[in-house]
This record gives sequence, C-alpha cells and structure tokens, in this order.
Amino acid sequence: MQKRAVVLLSGGLDSTTALAIARSAGYDCFAMSFNYGQRSLAELNAAKKVAQSMQVKEHVVVELDMSKIGGSALTDHSIDVPTSGLEEGIPITYVPARNTVFLSIALGWAEVLQAQHIFIGVNAVDYSGYPDCRPEFIKAFEDMANLATKAGVEGQKLTIEAPLMGLSKAQIIAKGMELGIDYLQTVSCYKATDDGKACGICDSCRLRKHGFESQGFTDLTRYV
Amino acid sequence: MQKRAVVLLSGGLDSTTALAIARSAGYDCFAMSFNYGQRSLAELNAAKKVAQSMQVKEHVVVELDMSKIGGSALTDHSIDVPTSGLEEGIPITYVPARNTVFLSIALGWAEVLQAQHIFIGVNAVDYSGYPDCRPEFIKAFEDMANLATKAGVEGQKLTIEAPLMGLSKAQIIAKGMELGIDYLQTVSCYKATDDGKACGICDSCRLRKHGFESQGFTDLTRYV
Repeated sequence: MQKRAVVLLSGGLDSTTALAIARSAGYDCFAMSFNYGQRSLAELNAAKKVAQSMQVKEHVVVELDMSKIGGSALTDHSIDVPTSGLEEGIPITYVPARNTVFLSIALGWAEVLQAQHIFIGVNAVDYSGYPDCRPEFIKAFEDMANLATKAGVEGQKLTIEAPLMGLSKAQIIAKGMELGIDYLQTVSCYKATDDGKACGICDSCRLRKHGFESQGFTDLTRYV
Repeated sequence: MQKRAVVLLSGGLDSTTALAIARSAGYDCFAMSFNYGQRSLAELNAAKKVAQSMQVKEHVVVELDMSKIGGSALTDHSIDVPTSGLEEGIPITYVPARNTVFLSIALGWAEVLQAQHIFIGVNAVDYSGYPDCRPEFIKAFEDMANLATKAGVEGQKLTIEAPLMGLSKAQIIAKGMELGIDYLQTVSCYKATDDGKACGICDSCRLRKHGFESQGFTDLTRYV
C-alpha cells in the first residue's frame, strides 16, 4: 500500500503548502477540513478547490459547531476581528484548543485509514502568537496520540508532520511556488468576502502580504 | 469565583458517577455531551435528564459527525455490535480517537470558562479494552493540554480528572449510590431503544450488569 497521510487543509496559504509538500514526498493524501462556525466560509471554498486541483484521494469536511463554546473573534460574531496590526500576546482571533481539536479528529481518520502521518501547516516563525502552533505542542500531541490509538498500542508509530514549523512566511511561499501552487486559489483573510476577497488589514492578511512583499514576490491575493 | 469543572457526560453509568463526584467535591459543573453519529440517541437523552437532575450550571450538546470517518460499530451502521461476550484485544465498538476528540473539545470550553479541571469517567479496571481509557493516555493528554492553551502558557495548570480510573464497576456503582445517583436515569447499552431500554447482551450491558450483580445490588437497568 502506498503510504498515506491525512492533511489538515483550511484553504489558506500555509495548509495548502503543507499539502503540496506531503504530495511531493509521495504520500497518498487525504484532506480534512472543518466547518467550525468560522466567520468566513471563503476559506472552506478555497479548501475544496485546492483539494481538487491537488488530486487528493479524498476530501472530507467535518461539521463541528465550535461557536457553541465561543471565546474567539473567529467564531463569536459579537467580537470584532482586530485590524490595527499584530499586538503582543495571544490575539483574540485565537480559537480555544482549535489545533488540538482538529488534530484529534484527524487522528481518528488516520486510524481508520491506517495512515501513519498527519500533516499540519503550523509555523512558529512568522507566527500568529497561538500556543498550539509551537513545536513543543506538536511533540506533546504526537506522544499523546501514540498512547490514544489502537495503532499506537499495536506498535505502529504515528507522526505529526509540521513541515513549515521552521520557515518564515516568505520561505513558505518560495517553497510553494517551487511546488507549483497557485496561491490565488488560497484564502487567508479572517474576514474574507464570500467570493474569497481579502480585507488586507487583519493579522492574517498582514502576515501573508509581508510574506509576498519581503522577497519581492507579486502578492497573489485578491483584495476587496 | 467558585472553582469550575467541565464534565464529559455521555449519560451512561460511568460519566454520571464522575459528574456526581465532581459535584460533591464542590465544583460548579459544566456538562458536555456529543451527538457524534452514535447508533443510539437514548444515551444522549439520558445525559439531558442527568444534567438537569444534577443541576449543572450549563449543558451543551456538541454536534460532531464522526460517522464520516467510520471505523466503529458504534458509528458505522454497516458494522454489527457484538453481543457474544467480551473478547481479547480492542473491540470493534472502539470509536477511533473518541476520548481524544471529546477531551479536546472540552479543553476548548474549559479555556473559555476558565475552568482548570476536566472530568472524564474512564476506568481501567472493568475495562472495555479501549486504548484511550488507560492512565498513561490521560497523563499524556494532560501534558499536551498544558502546552496547547493560553491558560497553560500563562501558567494556570489544567488537570484531567479521572476519578473512576482505579475502581471496578461494582465500586463505581457503590460510590454513585452513596452520592444519591438514580441509575435508572442512565443508559449504557450500545444499542438501546429510543426510549432507553437496554439489550442486556452487548459488552457495555454485560459490564454494567456484572457491576450490579457482583455486589448483590439490584440491577437498575430497564431491559427490552
């Protein structure tokens, strides 16, 4: 059997690059996205396009209503998304335990598929300030996952692959271009319009724009 | 502020006892249940009754479609629930990564509520053979959780409380009776009827029945 990987795919720049890396490493890729009550569905539409153009074996969109627990500007529509630039500390766009939840559900699917690899596009350099994007978190999740599952008990090691962890946004973009990604398909904006246009001023837009501009790339983003 | 706990509540015997223990320890309890594509909704109805009678501060039922990933007799309706007795190894009723997923979502809610305790009714004695019911799994999850969250980063330690871990089913029942639980409200059967009657022959029914009978308790279960 071809080696299999579950890839968390939001439809943004990072996860799309992680998928391209998994694919170029020879994995059969199974993409997983979430409809978790996020403010903008444009990212999810982008995920569908990306999954199709990268010929994943299967793409599932898991419905999960995180808005019930609230606590984030991305899921609680009574909180505004900040647009005045990155600040110190953990931003209000942080969704409590989001990567933990996504990786856990991916872990369940990996077990069913007998996939021993889960790819996630987190990075700790041009970094959002989210605690669940740090390498020590990824390592702790992997340790836990190997105790949680039937595969783990039976001695098949599962690894969490975070190939962007040490890369700057500009390096991620350079890598993705090398792999032929069409970044115009991807949506990073926290408050994108339904047809996928970006605001240009939220934290995610700022990080993305800086990534393109700092290396003299053309900014492949459609703005409002 | 009164100390707060998130309690995972399936509506079965174990989680109901865990809730009673949390309550008797003086926590403000926030109960969380899941509609995850399980075969029987009777357990979920039981959870609602239990939450109400135990006066939890809030009870949320999170919708999460685990049937999309398949792999278990509890969520994949093309697989039969075994009824011929407990066998060696991990049973087909094991839902891949279920406790990991449930604990992760509970972790998100705990963070929003500023609760530093999550209660889960797993036990490793009269034990189902599920890997994610073992103490080493609970410990690894706790370690991961403290790296995953804003609270963890800010130095507030979160603990995963598994007060039933070292107890036999009979000891759990004895504890629950001491705390005044009405076990007739609870449903453990994997294939309970919609009105909450148990089959009496699935693994979960066998463990429950043995728990009552081994100590000479009246079996507080409604059978078909």
